[in-house]
Amino acid sequence: MKTPWILFFCSLLPGLGDTLNCSSPTPEALFDSLEKELFSKKLLRPVKSFSETLKVTLEAKLAGILGVNEKSQSLTTIIWLSQKWNIQGLSWDEKECGTSKVSISREKLWIPDISISEFMEEDKSPKTFYVHLNNHGQVTDDKPVRVDSFCKLDIYTFPFDIQNCTMTFGPYLHTGHSAELTLQESREVLWTKGEWELKNIQVTASILEIPHGNYSEIKYYFILRRRPILYVVNLLLPSCFLITLDLFSFLLPPATTDRSAFKMTLILGYTVFLLIMNDLLPVTGHGTPLLNVFFSISLALMVASLLETIFITNIQFRSDNYVPVPHWLSVLVLRYLAAIVCLPRKRRSTRLTVSLSPEPKGMTYEKMRHFIPRPLFRLQRWHSVQLHPVRPFL
Amino acid sequence: MKTPWILFFCSLLPGLGDTLNCSSPTPEALFDSLEKELFSKKLLRPVKSFSETLKVTLEAKLAGILGVNEKSQSLTTIIWLSQKWNIQGLSWDEKECGTSKVSISREKLWIPDISISEFMEEDKSPKTFYVHLNNHGQVTDDKPVRVDSFCKLDIYTFPFDIQNCTMTFGPYLHTGHSAELTLQESREVLWTKGEWELKNIQVTASILEIPHGNYSEIKYYFILRRRPILYVVNLLLPSCFLITLDLFSFLLPPATTDRSAFKMTLILGYTVFLLIMNDLLPVTGHGTPLLNVFFSISLALMVASLLETIFITNIQFRSDNYVPVPHWLSVLVLRYLAAIVCLPRKRRSTRLTVSLSPEPKGMTYEKMRHFIPRPLFRLQRWHSVQLHPVRPFL
Amino acid sequence: MKTPWILFFCSLLPGLGDTLNCSSPTPEALFDSLEKELFSKKLLRPVKSFSETLKVTLEAKLAGILGVNEKSQSLTTIIWLSQKWNIQGLSWDEKECGTSKVSISREKLWIPDISISEFMEEDKSPKTFYVHLNNHGQVTDDKPVRVDSFCKLDIYTFPFDIQNCTMTFGPYLHTGHSAELTLQESREVLWTKGEWELKNIQVTASILEIPHGNYSEIKYYFILRRRPILYVVNLLLPSCFLITLDLFSFLLPPATTDRSAFKMTLILGYTVFLLIMNDLLPVTGHGTPLLNVFFSISLALMVASLLETIFITNIQFRSDNYVPVPHWLSVLVLRYLAAIVCLPRKRRSTRLTVSLSPEPKGMTYEKMRHFIPRPLFRLQRWHSVQLHPVRPFL
Amino acid sequence: MKTPWILFFCSLLPGLGDTLNCSSPTPEALFDSLEKELFSKKLLRPVKSFSETLKVTLEAKLAGILGVNEKSQSLTTIIWLSQKWNIQGLSWDEKECGTSKVSISREKLWIPDISISEFMEEDKSPKTFYVHLNNHGQVTDDKPVRVDSFCKLDIYTFPFDIQNCTMTFGPYLHTGHSAELTLQESREVLWTKGEWELKNIQVTASILEIPHGNYSEIKYYFILRRRPILYVVNLLLPSCFLITLDLFSFLLPPATTDRSAFKMTLILGYTVFLLIMNDLLPVTGHGTPLLNVFFSISLALMVASLLETIFITNIQFRSDNYVPVPHWLSVLVLRYLAAIVCLPRKRRSTRLTVSLSPEPKGMTYEKMRHFIPRPLFRLQRWHSVQLHPVRPFL
Amino acid sequence: MKTPWILFFCSLLPGLGDTLNCSSPTPEALFDSLEKELFSKKLLRPVKSFSETLKVTLEAKLAGILGVNEKSQSLTTIIWLSQKWNIQGLSWDEKECGTSKVSISREKLWIPDISISEFMEEDKSPKTFYVHLNNHGQVTDDKPVRVDSFCKLDIYTFPFDIQNCTMTFGPYLHTGHSAELTLQESREVLWTKGEWELKNIQVTASILEIPHGNYSEIKYYFILRRRPILYVVNLLLPSCFLITLDLFSFLLPPATTDRSAFKMTLILGYTVFLLIMNDLLPVTGHGTPLLNVFFSISLALMVASLLETIFITNIQFRSDNYVPVPHWLSVLVLRYLAAIVCLPRKRRSTRLTVSLSPEPKGMTYEKMRHFIPRPLFRLQRWHSVQLHPVRPFL
Repeated sequence: MKTPWILFFCSLLPGLGDTLNCSSPTPEALFDSLEKELFSKKLLRPVKSFSETLKVTLEAKLAGILGVNEKSQSLTTIIWLSQKWNIQGLSWDEKECGTSKVSISREKLWIPDISISEFMEEDKSPKTFYVHLNNHGQVTDDKPVRVDSFCKLDIYTFPFDIQNCTMTFGPYLHTGHSAELTLQESREVLWTKGEWELKNIQVTASILEIPHGNYSEIKYYFILRRRPILYVVNLLLPSCFLITLDLFSFLLPPATTDRSAFKMTLILGYTVFLLIMNDLLPVTGHGTPLLNVFFSISLALMVASLLETIFITNIQFRSDNYVPVPHWLSVLVLRYLAAIVCLPRKRRSTRLTVSLSPEPKGMTYEKMRHFIPRPLFRLQRWHSVQLHPVRPFL
Repeated sequence: MKTPWILFFCSLLPGLGDTLNCSSPTPEALFDSLEKELFSKKLLRPVKSFSETLKVTLEAKLAGILGVNEKSQSLTTIIWLSQKWNIQGLSWDEKECGTSKVSISREKLWIPDISISEFMEEDKSPKTFYVHLNNHGQVTDDKPVRVDSFCKLDIYTFPFDIQNCTMTFGPYLHTGHSAELTLQESREVLWTKGEWELKNIQVTASILEIPHGNYSEIKYYFILRRRPILYVVNLLLPSCFLITLDLFSFLLPPATTDRSAFKMTLILGYTVFLLIMNDLLPVTGHGTPLLNVFFSISLALMVASLLETIFITNIQFRSDNYVPVPHWLSVLVLRYLAAIVCLPRKRRSTRLTVSLSPEPKGMTYEKMRHFIPRPLFRLQRWHSVQLHPVRPFL
Repeated sequence: MKTPWILFFCSLLPGLGDTLNCSSPTPEALFDSLEKELFSKKLLRPVKSFSETLKVTLEAKLAGILGVNEKSQSLTTIIWLSQKWNIQGLSWDEKECGTSKVSISREKLWIPDISISEFMEEDKSPKTFYVHLNNHGQVTDDKPVRVDSFCKLDIYTFPFDIQNCTMTFGPYLHTGHSAELTLQESREVLWTKGEWELKNIQVTASILEIPHGNYSEIKYYFILRRRPILYVVNLLLPSCFLITLDLFSFLLPPATTDRSAFKMTLILGYTVFLLIMNDLLPVTGHGTPLLNVFFSISLALMVASLLETIFITNIQFRSDNYVPVPHWLSVLVLRYLAAIVCLPRKRRSTRLTVSLSPEPKGMTYEKMRHFIPRPLFRLQRWHSVQLHPVRPFL
Repeated sequence: MKTPWILFFCSLLPGLGDTLNCSSPTPEALFDSLEKELFSKKLLRPVKSFSETLKVTLEAKLAGILGVNEKSQSLTTIIWLSQKWNIQGLSWDEKECGTSKVSISREKLWIPDISISEFMEEDKSPKTFYVHLNNHGQVTDDKPVRVDSFCKLDIYTFPFDIQNCTMTFGPYLHTGHSAELTLQESREVLWTKGEWELKNIQVTASILEIPHGNYSEIKYYFILRRRPILYVVNLLLPSCFLITLDLFSFLLPPATTDRSAFKMTLILGYTVFLLIMNDLLPVTGHGTPLLNVFFSISLALMVASLLETIFITNIQFRSDNYVPVPHWLSVLVLRYLAAIVCLPRKRRSTRLTVSLSPEPKGMTYEKMRHFIPRPLFRLQRWHSVQLHPVRPFL
Repeated sequence: MKTPWILFFCSLLPGLGDTLNCSSPTPEALFDSLEKELFSKKLLRPVKSFSETLKVTLEAKLAGILGVNEKSQSLTTIIWLSQKWNIQGLSWDEKECGTSKVSISREKLWIPDISISEFMEEDKSPKTFYVHLNNHGQVTDDKPVRVDSFCKLDIYTFPFDIQNCTMTFGPYLHTGHSAELTLQESREVLWTKGEWELKNIQVTASILEIPHGNYSEIKYYFILRRRPILYVVNLLLPSCFLITLDLFSFLLPPATTDRSAFKMTLILGYTVFLLIMNDLLPVTGHGTPLLNVFFSISLALMVASLLETIFITNIQFRSDNYVPVPHWLSVLVLRYLAAIVCLPRKRRSTRLTVSLSPEPKGMTYEKMRHFIPRPLFRLQRWHSVQLHPVRPFL
């Protein structure tokens, strides 16, 4: 005597197991039935009883990476999102109604509130209007979504950085009790060929447990790698050129050319170059790229080498009735800075030279000995600083 | 004989104390009842009588700081806003209707007009559609809100500034008599890792009393601290480098190198650097950052030191048949400017030197004595200006 | 026998003088009555007969100045707009219906089409939904409005400019016959502290008479003053520094230093500075700020002084077998340009000096006398140009 | 027996010739009638039969020019658009219904689809809601329209360019058979005072004949003139200053100053200036402004003059044991380039000078004669190049 | 006995073959019929049975190219899109209903979901409201569409690049079974005259076969050519000027002028020029334009030539008691770099010169022979480097 109970149950839960009746296999007949059974219940979660869970199958394909905004720490992508779920108790006979699949305006159905937790702006996606409904009650909702999502960007290794951006799909309100997400295998269909390259997509389904209830969610991890060629060509290479120039500018003879003016112009050029860097570098307050630090240190070294040039010029051309360079300064410059810029030692010349000339402009070797400390003394011999202490006269 | 009066009251105020009747524990039955009792009264504030106050519990979590616009004095944030209130007189039996909680489309309900007074633009929040309604009539409305709010920014201490931005949540129209806000403990769930760091959130509930009536409001104070590393590396450090260069450029011997051209190139570099500053500094008309003043003073000092160099060069190389430097100018430059740039005094040399040479290009020590005032005279002795008045000849 | 006529009139004009009947002092009862009497007449101007004028009381508070766009000549502000009008013939008994004031969704009412004539973009205001209706039929509609309005900006005195922006509130379509604006006292509640300071608000109510009919309008004049500190620190000060440098660069001895190169570098620096100016100056085609003209004249003077330096250098170092400077050029440079840069005259030296040396590089005083016109001759004597014509030899 | 037929016709075509019946001269009565006769036919073109043409009278006033975007070739304006058309068969008695004019919500009426063919973006106009309907059935639809329209911009004569932008108003779909545009005299009410000045408005009504049918359209030609003062002050003047400097830099004596360095700094300054130009010039790929070409030619001339300086310096200071300048190069530089920069010829000096000195650094007049071609020889004599061939020795 | 079956079929499939019945040839009568037969079936695909395919004819005209965004790899265009399809079973008698064509509000009809796969943003097209319906049931839907579509941009040959952008029109959801696209000949009506020139449009209709079903799609290939004149005038020409300068700067005599300073200023100018390039070059991370590489190589060559100058200056002016240039460096510079900059060989001078002078500043020919390798030795002879080894003394 099971049948009567089932009959009773069927009458109690409308749409359970019973199929739609189409008066004829025409679109009109099917939509009349759907109107009555489905469209009128737009407000209801399509389950037979409250205790049932709606299972939504989710598939996300990354169609394009539009950009990364380091300032607001966001990532803009286009994702093709496909959701599938069953309207419980809805089915029809394919032959009776004439089709196994119809397209229905999205407005006529209850739609699960699957959202992306990291979403940060109003929806700017291109709009689509129809969903598919098949004769077993399965709804397929395909749509493109333009996602502006948070992404904690770490630009320390810029421009060789790899970012890991997460998108957490989940129902905004419905707990796992009401709506549960399952995952479909995801394929990537990348259309864009821009600054960012997609290295990998990882997907995990998890349960977020908070006091209010458990939320079912699916996390997509997009591993993006920046293509560094632009920054290497426009930032790193010219910077290295200028630094090379600065290193070799020690070869300029200070007696003939104005080495300090040369180096000053070089620093000016580097400042102009910093202007370019300022346009290209990602501007975010948290953490500075290593590249930025590299540029700052380069500038610091250039300034230090210019200062050294100034000191040496001062030592070389000043008369001896002025105060000598303070001891600490000469030690700092000659022992440590010389070591920093890696100046090699020269073997002592074995030729003994005697200076006989009065040396009206420069200064004699002997005088300098008295107040220039040892390191500088050594420096003079292999350094490009030409103090001309000994000149072989005829 | 109290019951009849209560019965009468119940029939008078529909929904007071009486529960929804569900014909069966199915979604359809519950929504039919809700349709009749609740959705049809969307226009009405959900209270039993006009004198009742609707109590709204508010909870705001700061999810992300997207940016601060100093020009328009605004702050952009994402806030997760949770509002809870009771629909008076609505309840149902959990067993009878099959559930203790349903999700309802927000459009079907009366929603309190809680707004943020500092809001300044149209709503660009991502949209959500459902709210929760439990069997005691409590509505829970969770939604993310993208807030563009006014914030009086004080950038005097930039880039080490701390901003205090206020958000005043309150009903836009309903006085405290109609709607009252209460506060729930707030947790911060910051997603972003950008230029601004959240130091503290303070919340106070207060009453705004204006002639029209009293408004209940909740003020959130967000204390934000700027992460200064970007500005230190890109603005402060290079600026200090250039200033250091300018200070030490006094060591350049004026006889050999063109010191004024060197300093002019330095000032040119500083001008280029001001261009970078102009891109990075917050541009707001009200109050200038201290940093800006610092840069201006640095430029002023550079210009002053270049002017001093020009004067000294002029004094050093001019012949004596021209007019001397005006007294006020030499006093200004030599006594006061020399004190500003902190030039130390040198002890008088005890060696007496006699100049015998005709000095065709420079000028003799004795001649200068006549028209150079004392301070300059002292300056010459310890300054890097090499007048070569006395040269020990063999 | 007046009563019957009135009764007839009342029945003829529904809602005149008769009050709403509430079956009980509950929200439901009041809204049932309102639905019947008010909401069904949403399309109608709420007057008893067409000849009646709807009086709208307007109050506008300036809440914030978001910015001024000189390019498109527009002003963006946030205004708190309060409109009040009476629904003629609507009233209810406070006791009978239970309240003296209800909040109603704005969509349910006829709203006057008060607009701002200078408005130039789609509405981006934050949205509010409710208006107040009291028991005398008065509707109070408060809302924030983000206004992008035209404003004829005059930037001649930039950055010390004061702008007068007008906002003309008025019904877009309804003539004064249909809708009339009256003015309520306005208070300013300025939230922002940006580039612009509000000096004054003036309000006048006027009638715009055009052939179609008379339109009632209220004009708000917002007098805004720019806070100039940013532009003074970043534009005026550095510019003055560079001009000062240029003036004093005449003190550089042309024999020792390359004065023309120095001045060329200075002009280069000024060009870089013009780049900053180009970022900060308001770009509008109509009328150029005085500041812009000042910068152009400064550049012109710098170029002129460099040209003078070039001429003098040429005169000083050329040999005498070349063509002399054309007469008109020397007069132009020496008489008029010298006057422009305010060179003082020096008293003739009374000392007679005789030059005996052959002067291989420079030129003798006597030779120059022959082809340098008088003014230049005078110029040489007090100018910083050192021709070294007379040197006291031992 | 004509009357019955007409009666029949009247009953057949509702609203033809018969007037609305108002039960009383109140708004309610009129709107009840309108609801029945007009609002229910919102979908229908308001004509009595399909063969009738709807005549729309159009008036457009230019209220403001917001900007021109050369990159996307578009023009943004605010236009006050007034359309008038008749609802055939609608009329009422002014006395019977109480008014001759009512305001009606635009949504309740059929609106002609007059659009602008050049429109290129979504509508961002401020919204208005009401139209006027008078008792003869004439609808007056006034609204402001923010127009982003295509405009073929020709920037060849920038900044003195005059643009001719067309706006073609016409029904998007309805052929001339269905809707016909007639033109009302147009007045300009320009609010803005920006970069563009309105020279003239020309209007023509025409018929667009395409195979589908004839479309009635009205073309507005807006003749706009750019106000060039900004570009003259910021672009043309500084450029001319720098070019003047370059011309006169030939006066610098090459023996004393480093003329090539001077010119190099000048070119550097011009490059910085090109940076400003790059910000201000309209960036469109099609056709380059004449101004841009002028700047390029200026730069080319500067570079050429610097090259000439380099050659001359080379000739002047090199020893004679090096290869001479190739013949073609000297001819190019001295005959043609000299002609280009308009160097005048000097009369031959009649003084014969004999060089006796060995000339250790320079070169003798006689040696140069041998390999410097005639033109250069002539050039030396009046040019500022000082070869010092003849020096009067004691 | 075929007729009854057909009759039965007609009654079964409403609208098949039977015409609309108009009670009178008036708009009202026709719309009444349409309301009943067509508007009520807005949700249904307009076919007689599910197995029928809806054939949509598509025509796209490119009206304007608004811009290309290299950063996000997108193309913005305005396209005039015309779709035509038949409502099966709908027809009316032209005479009976009075017209052969009516305009209908788009909202009243089922619209095929033809979308562009590459679309990446919300729809910003100007809105139109009406479609045409003729008496054979054909719907013509014309509308302008503003398309923001992906386009894989290859900027390797910038600014002479040709881009091929694809737009794939197809139904988003309906498989080829439900909706089929056919193609109409397309004409181009280009309004814009901007940076991009349309070279060609190619169209192909294809079938996209995926497991879910076959989708009918039409691919438009837009071949766009950039107009390079702007970039040639502003980027290529000035760059070539500066490189020319650098090449000829070898002619500067190192003894008289400071050639290294000259070249440093030139490099500074090139850095400023790179700043302009940075503004104009398309910034995309994938692939760098050849032009960018050209600029980098130019900068590298300039730096290399400056380094060479530094080395030569060093060799020329240093004394011989310092370490000689390392062998590998001189070989690198003199043999290979000299070959790179294409220095010609000079024939050996046959004149024998004997140096007698002590050469206090420079160095003798003989001494240099000992440590300068052969290539440099050769270089000195035709190079502009003036070592003055042989001076003809009297």
